[in-house]
Amino acid sequence: MNFIEGLKEGWKQGKFLCLGLDPDLSKLPQHLLNQMHMSDGALVFEFNRNIILNTFDLVLAYKPNIAFYEGLGADGFDVLNKTIRVIRDADPKIPIILDFKRGDIGNTNIGYVDLAFNELGVDAVTLSPYMGKASLEPFLELHDKGAIIICKTSNPESGEFQDLNTSEGLLYEVVAKRVANNWNKNGNCALVVGATYPADLKKVRELAGNMPILIPGIGKQGGDLIESVKAGLNLHGDGIIINSSRDILYASSGEDYALKARERAELVSNQIRDTVAEVKKMREPNN
Amino acid sequence: MNFIEGLKEGWKQGKFLCLGLDPDLSKLPQHLLNQMHMSDGALVFEFNRNIILNTFDLVLAYKPNIAFYEGLGADGFDVLNKTIRVIRDADPKIPIILDFKRGDIGNTNIGYVDLAFNELGVDAVTLSPYMGKASLEPFLELHDKGAIIICKTSNPESGEFQDLNTSEGLLYEVVAKRVANNWNKNGNCALVVGATYPADLKKVRELAGNMPILIPGIGKQGGDLIESVKAGLNLHGDGIIINSSRDILYASSGEDYALKARERAELVSNQIRDTVAEVKKMREPNN
Repeated sequence: MNFIEGLKEGWKQGKFLCLGLDPDLSKLPQHLLNQMHMSDGALVFEFNRNIILNTFDLVLAYKPNIAFYEGLGADGFDVLNKTIRVIRDADPKIPIILDFKRGDIGNTNIGYVDLAFNELGVDAVTLSPYMGKASLEPFLELHDKGAIIICKTSNPESGEFQDLNTSEGLLYEVVAKRVANNWNKNGNCALVVGATYPADLKKVRELAGNMPILIPGIGKQGGDLIESVKAGLNLHGDGIIINSSRDILYASSGEDYALKARERAELVSNQIRDTVAEVKKMREPNN
Repeated sequence: MNFIEGLKEGWKQGKFLCLGLDPDLSKLPQHLLNQMHMSDGALVFEFNRNIILNTFDLVLAYKPNIAFYEGLGADGFDVLNKTIRVIRDADPKIPIILDFKRGDIGNTNIGYVDLAFNELGVDAVTLSPYMGKASLEPFLELHDKGAIIICKTSNPESGEFQDLNTSEGLLYEVVAKRVANNWNKNGNCALVVGATYPADLKKVRELAGNMPILIPGIGKQGGDLIESVKAGLNLHGDGIIINSSRDILYASSGEDYALKARERAELVSNQIRDTVAEVKKMREPNN
């Protein structure tokens, strides 16, 4: 599957929600944790499986963050791999983003390419820009695979370096410009901008043309959904991948967790879709 | 073990060389690759084991880069974990640095803390600065564990962002200053500066006081060993962790690979030690 084409297919169907599969053992429903015969890895997989089977028709993409799996130690790879297989079996057309924020010198990145695209078989990865374009070529040259570059992150003090004033603008603006104008030769790049900074998101959208933007930080982190959608939409009225994790995964801590997650995912999806429709209407020539 | 104390112990013994355990399947000795009954993971482990058993009395530290293990898929964690056990059995006092260049929002980093310090049991990790100090607190607050922050990397075009001119100096200088003056409250921080930029290394040493600096990039990458040692030494005549990987690991592709690796490690160690002695002598008041 071509990652960007997969996104476009979803956008056509009015899908903009990316579900972050970030299973935190301490937050899993009690009835699951009570299954004493199950390993941590088996519990996480059971949780993921039920979440996926109850949400796959609603989402634009899934985004497992590898930190939540690697913390499981030896079981981590297997749980993540099986989780990805569940998504593929449910609907092979759903793009899967591996959130691993990697980046090393060119040669070393080949191990991460193998992990993401050969061993796990995802469609896109998140990458750190700090070491520069040349270091990330092993990802950028894979035309079909998405390279989603960290630009302005959702955490409260993300500005320590990202907002530094440089000779070419704020650092995150420089990252956005370089990726848009120089890194995206194969049309497979995207950016990460946190929903917690809607004004910065608006600036990045202006700098990045129609490039997809992955937008985490709505819900628990405090990002405003409606502001983010308005700031993030491109000229086609799409280009946004709105991520939510905890709000959906832990909508209920009871046995109904998967159904409640579905209800929550549906609610957020509808809010996004309504806002997209509103923005498109406002842009019509008669307005 | 306290990471910084472990380094100081090694420096007292005249040890400055860090051996990067970055096993690349395509470069392993042919007689190992001919062992058709062995899995890729088993081959890599056998290679690592022999390298470690032939070098552990020479090195200041070992530094496995996780990319070379994660590329192995399901076996990766196990091979890395067993490699670390071999080092501990050979000499429990040798500091082990997990090179993983991670960094995510605070909450998510807990998975990486678990991976590094609970599951694998290393003494220090490399971290990406891009998301800011607050995001890395789960690492910084672990007094005994080293937090080695990527500052100026050894790759040819590392300056794309790292050399950007900001209102507070070049970006890598700002990183060095922030880590030295604000991030290092627990005295457990260090910086990464490539041997390929000795002038930048000199500037970072001036900004960072006596903080340890991990210096990759000698050998195949073209960094000058002697220049790097001179630029990197602190006022105590130590503070440097000079990394070499490929030059030592693949010193021979024959059955004598481990012995040749030892010879090469010894040669590099002696070059560093001689240069350190020379610098110390030049600094004596009579000169």
